[in-house]
Amino acid sequence: MPVDEFGLIKRYFSACGTGTSDTLLGVGDDCALLAPPAGEVLAVTTDTLLAGVHFPNDSPARLIGLRALAVNLSDMAAMGATPRWFQLALTLPDADQDWLAEFSAGLNSMARDYNCALVGGDTTRGPLTISITLIGTVPPGKALKRSGAKPGDTIFVSGTLGDGAGGLAVLEGRLPVDTGAATYLQERFWQPQARVTEGLAISSFASAAIDISDGLLADLGHIVAASQVGASIEVDHLPLSQVLRGAAGVERSYQWALRGGDDYELCFTVPANGLAQCQRLIDEGVLNATAIGLVDQGQGVRCVDSRGDFLDTRDSGYQHF
Amino acid sequence: MPVDEFGLIKRYFSACGTGTSDTLLGVGDDCALLAPPAGEVLAVTTDTLLAGVHFPNDSPARLIGLRALAVNLSDMAAMGATPRWFQLALTLPDADQDWLAEFSAGLNSMARDYNCALVGGDTTRGPLTISITLIGTVPPGKALKRSGAKPGDTIFVSGTLGDGAGGLAVLEGRLPVDTGAATYLQERFWQPQARVTEGLAISSFASAAIDISDGLLADLGHIVAASQVGASIEVDHLPLSQVLRGAAGVERSYQWALRGGDDYELCFTVPANGLAQCQRLIDEGVLNATAIGLVDQGQGVRCVDSRGDFLDTRDSGYQHF
Repeated sequence: MPVDEFGLIKRYFSACGTGTSDTLLGVGDDCALLAPPAGEVLAVTTDTLLAGVHFPNDSPARLIGLRALAVNLSDMAAMGATPRWFQLALTLPDADQDWLAEFSAGLNSMARDYNCALVGGDTTRGPLTISITLIGTVPPGKALKRSGAKPGDTIFVSGTLGDGAGGLAVLEGRLPVDTGAATYLQERFWQPQARVTEGLAISSFASAAIDISDGLLADLGHIVAASQVGASIEVDHLPLSQVLRGAAGVERSYQWALRGGDDYELCFTVPANGLAQCQRLIDEGVLNATAIGLVDQGQGVRCVDSRGDFLDTRDSGYQHF
Repeated sequence: MPVDEFGLIKRYFSACGTGTSDTLLGVGDDCALLAPPAGEVLAVTTDTLLAGVHFPNDSPARLIGLRALAVNLSDMAAMGATPRWFQLALTLPDADQDWLAEFSAGLNSMARDYNCALVGGDTTRGPLTISITLIGTVPPGKALKRSGAKPGDTIFVSGTLGDGAGGLAVLEGRLPVDTGAATYLQERFWQPQARVTEGLAISSFASAAIDISDGLLADLGHIVAASQVGASIEVDHLPLSQVLRGAAGVERSYQWALRGGDDYELCFTVPANGLAQCQRLIDEGVLNATAIGLVDQGQGVRCVDSRGDFLDTRDSGYQHF
């Protein structure tokens, strides 16, 4: 029996993350109908993943499902917004039932973890492409923009950096590691933990935020460009995982932390009057974050090493074209 | 100079349809920030177009831009909702400046016509794919669902049917026509006029609605399935354009009207107590619509010809898989 487009959508995706009371009508009509909390502002983001570009061909379908939603959740986190609903545009080479079951299981699991619901989308035939548009909400005036950084603000990053690039290197056979390190790093690549809780926690005092998808230099570069400021970061302060440091060595770990991308940690700036509150969240274990530098009146992002020497940062981040 | 992802988005899309006061933050941050009208419900839809699947390869970029937004606007129309903002997920084989200029001009023009704003998205490298997620709003309880049709309701369609399939046949060289007919039919394919005004006009009395993208039989089939009713339509009553009838002949025109797809007209049902209001809108020229049949207690969609004979309707509509 041929599986039609509508059958596909119904069978694998209609139960995904549903049951939230603010979804009036989910998958299956011309539009989804959604009731946002009264008075809140919508936050909307779209991220597309292509096989062979954003993840290796023939990757496990469940992991693709997990990652496709996680990268969007990370954008929501960087805005200090609460994720609520998403639309899935799925292009598939064929209607492989096993693939769909695994993919939707991964997607479903990530949706449950972050309490958001798949409410619609489109399925088409072609090279494997997953494009998700995620809709969240945030109280008026509370969203964390890229443009709010001011000279004197302290720059923080959440978690550890470079693990995403390390995980991709393991997947692609470029980094020989033991089983434990391979598991940790690949999981960091496939299942980035979107820092939604952290984004909400810092939204009362941070002046700007972005998620690190293209590498710290590139993404912090977006903050300083949007805020019309400069930044200097102390490379020795960049938080690295023990696993990455052990597997890739210090030099390569710092390179990946600066330029690797795929970390999906938050980079945010905190004015002087927010530092005490930020430190309290860190001390309480609510926020895992490290101060790595300062916003200044310069231009661009400058890196300083332990001897105070400037490092060349011209080659910054990942470009699609 | 290589054009990077961010440069691309900025140069061609940041001005597209902006200027609506309800867009607090558009293209260029982690999320767009949008202020929906107080108390309204969100209506959200996603449609993906692939080169070689949904339109011929090497089609003019401006027309692709027009059509990509139009098909989403049509879903919004079918819900009786007002389109407001959209996200664009654009996958391109390369960063062709001319192509981008033409594509964004088409998109921009359609966005202006329907007063909606491009607020974000993602650009990636790969086979040409355009996926748009359109967000609109509708007062609570006013949305037109597929599931509201009741036995005794009259079935209407807007405009004329079959022109979309005729236009595609002209594009693909399957229908020899004169220049005037070619222009009309191709425009009907490339620039479907989403019936947003009509959708809003009928929302106070229609019981169910859908837009005709996959063919009348398939799409009316969705209404009767969702509403758990049946329908019979009188084929002779299907509205055909003079151009299509002249170019394709009566028999083929009716086939395309029933099964062709790509028309993006509305199919809607009206209970007895709404018929006078519907007729008034038709008489006033606000609504161009034709009664084509009745909802009944049966199952599926049955077609009757002028002699009252039943027609075989097993082969219904367009399937991607």
